[in-house]
Amino acid sequence: MEVQSGTGTGHEIEAPNNITIKGILGLLMANTDAKGNGKKVISLGIGDPTAYSCFCATSASQEAVVDALRSAKFNGYSPTVGLPQTRKAIAELLSRDLPYKLPPDDVYITAGCTQAIEITLSIMARPGANILLPRPGFPIYGLCATFRHLECRYFDLLPYKGWEVDLSAMENLADHNTVAVVIINPGNPCGNVYTYQHLKEIAETAKRLGIVVIADEVYGHLAFGANPFVPMGVFGSLAPVITLGSLSKRWLVPGWRLGWLVTNDLNGSLKSPKFVERLKKYCDICGGPATFIQAAVPAIVEETQEAFFRKTINTLKQTSDICYQKIKEIRCVSCPRKPEGSMAFMVKLNISMLKDISDDIDFCFKLAKEESVIILPGLAVGLENWLRITFAVEPSSLEEALERVKSFCQRHSC
Amino acid sequence: MEVQSGTGTGHEIEAPNNITIKGILGLLMANTDAKGNGKKVISLGIGDPTAYSCFCATSASQEAVVDALRSAKFNGYSPTVGLPQTRKAIAELLSRDLPYKLPPDDVYITAGCTQAIEITLSIMARPGANILLPRPGFPIYGLCATFRHLECRYFDLLPYKGWEVDLSAMENLADHNTVAVVIINPGNPCGNVYTYQHLKEIAETAKRLGIVVIADEVYGHLAFGANPFVPMGVFGSLAPVITLGSLSKRWLVPGWRLGWLVTNDLNGSLKSPKFVERLKKYCDICGGPATFIQAAVPAIVEETQEAFFRKTINTLKQTSDICYQKIKEIRCVSCPRKPEGSMAFMVKLNISMLKDISDDIDFCFKLAKEESVIILPGLAVGLENWLRITFAVEPSSLEEALERVKSFCQRHSC
Repeated sequence: MEVQSGTGTGHEIEAPNNITIKGILGLLMANTDAKGNGKKVISLGIGDPTAYSCFCATSASQEAVVDALRSAKFNGYSPTVGLPQTRKAIAELLSRDLPYKLPPDDVYITAGCTQAIEITLSIMARPGANILLPRPGFPIYGLCATFRHLECRYFDLLPYKGWEVDLSAMENLADHNTVAVVIINPGNPCGNVYTYQHLKEIAETAKRLGIVVIADEVYGHLAFGANPFVPMGVFGSLAPVITLGSLSKRWLVPGWRLGWLVTNDLNGSLKSPKFVERLKKYCDICGGPATFIQAAVPAIVEETQEAFFRKTINTLKQTSDICYQKIKEIRCVSCPRKPEGSMAFMVKLNISMLKDISDDIDFCFKLAKEESVIILPGLAVGLENWLRITFAVEPSSLEEALERVKSFCQRHSC
Repeated sequence: MEVQSGTGTGHEIEAPNNITIKGILGLLMANTDAKGNGKKVISLGIGDPTAYSCFCATSASQEAVVDALRSAKFNGYSPTVGLPQTRKAIAELLSRDLPYKLPPDDVYITAGCTQAIEITLSIMARPGANILLPRPGFPIYGLCATFRHLECRYFDLLPYKGWEVDLSAMENLADHNTVAVVIINPGNPCGNVYTYQHLKEIAETAKRLGIVVIADEVYGHLAFGANPFVPMGVFGSLAPVITLGSLSKRWLVPGWRLGWLVTNDLNGSLKSPKFVERLKKYCDICGGPATFIQAAVPAIVEETQEAFFRKTINTLKQTSDICYQKIKEIRCVSCPRKPEGSMAFMVKLNISMLKDISDDIDFCFKLAKEESVIILPGLAVGLENWLRITFAVEPSSLEEALERVKSFCQRHSC
């Protein structure tokens, strides 16, 4: 199915289950006209901050990888579930925030969080099964589910209730073929951080439904508002939880492709030999992350100073504040909730205030063309006439980009 | 389905579609008794030679990766199909052996050859489809196909005809639901290298059947017999070819997880927008290889000296000769063909000459227990009562291991 955007902009965007953020951003990038408008391209589109010096990986992490590589001990294959020392290091890292000690055997090392998503959905797929996904959400889930013939059912996140899960909607969607619910916290694309209480309610709902919670915590610990980050694994005694994470965001190394899939499952629902065997066999057909990067993980985890994390969080707080303030100045957009986590948030577009913009897609393509600013249309994450703005951007570039958005909106206002 | 080995050895080994080499080797390893028999474990089981100093990666490759990493330019995401410079470097590398210039856009960078296999089988799978696989072969194909609901049909490789494909058997297996045939050359597990003429006949057969040739060339260029290595892509004008390869074996860095999937397809059968779009979208859900390793590939390809490759090939020739000669000395095993490529070959077990060994599985488990030597049972690669022996092992260890096999066989002879 293809969805044509509103009134003949000519930009064909596919239905949510078949799109990727990178795909749309590529189309937008191709639509910029830096030569024509004389403006340098600024992207507020993707959660990869590594282009900016204020979001730079530590040299300690880098040197840990160099040491592992130069030792020449890690040029060979690793076990497909990951090196034992890597599994142990991640288990210890995650256990710091859990009321129990996570066994290393419950940790599977993956090529980034993307592969962790792919593995999770693949091993849960069976004929007729469905999965509950948040709207707005992260499109890789829909794309993955489509490849695995897993039906997607979308429940709403409530913008005016801190993007909380509409629990009754979630419950109503589920049936005996539902295998899991996906929860992304800190929220991508919403920039929210769930409370302990809300996470507990989600786990209780999952327990009632007899389904697994897939907790996407790729932005784990990147919280700078009132709510602290609480891992869903805390509720692993209520419902079986599969936690997905990676070094990508917190350590600012998305290109290293070092992620994990963890079963937080105190009642052992996921520990049937059949499930574990399927998971292990699935790991056998995936090319995992490089062995020497895995070998560096214990040192990376141990040697990264709290000050590094604090700096990232402070910068994200600063840039998200810039966004929030600037958005207030622009009449045709509004933000239901100040961002308090992750690297992106959602703003609502008031299309009726714009004279010649038909929808969010049209908005983003014209913005790219006229102002060389890339913003992701909300449709890409399941919410038409919203925008997803990434604030993991250097403050000066961010201010410049939002200034351009402001003048674009003024120019196109009714 | 579970297959119980012969006469009550108690080792349950699953049917070929559900096994992996690493899985079986793990069981064998657990069955060794180095304390009991006082013998150091020697594995002739896996194609990972990096444990031995005679199969050591070049420091040039290593330093290319260090440089890319330390530049801090490659900590971010790469395009999911691979960095442009990496695709270009692999295209140029492969073009050296082709009668045409491979476009970089036809190269997709993957997390090792394993992921290239997984991607290929996944994008070819459709309801009711089947794939033709060689017997003996590489079990990841069967495992992958099973996960993707792709029916496997096995054609024989002919041990006494240089492990050539039984072309008429292959042709008879195919029907209108057949999508592809897998050819592994240089051969794993057989250690053979196909002639230009035989490869041409395979391509002609594929053309007649209207199917794709999946050419697994992970051991490409590791040929040390009479037949030079000829890439299947040479026949990309006859039939559509998907070539799979990696740095793993030729550069001796299997743990780096840097592989590729290439379409060699001069008639454009695989270039339909639909196929390419499906392939690209599939890459979007896979976690690929680390960006900085990708970034090092141009330097790795350019700076690796011919002398490095020559040394590896000479060593493999030497170790395969040791194997071939030693096997001749052992009464109950025979080798139909002297190895001339890859890192492994097959030897036939004459079970009737052994008094208390029921089959290849029993042989390998008892050998592990009594002699601390790990050899892969042929059943793991589809051929009962054969053995797969890896000769990518240091000469002294190899001689010691084969000496132990000899005394094991003598002890168990009728």
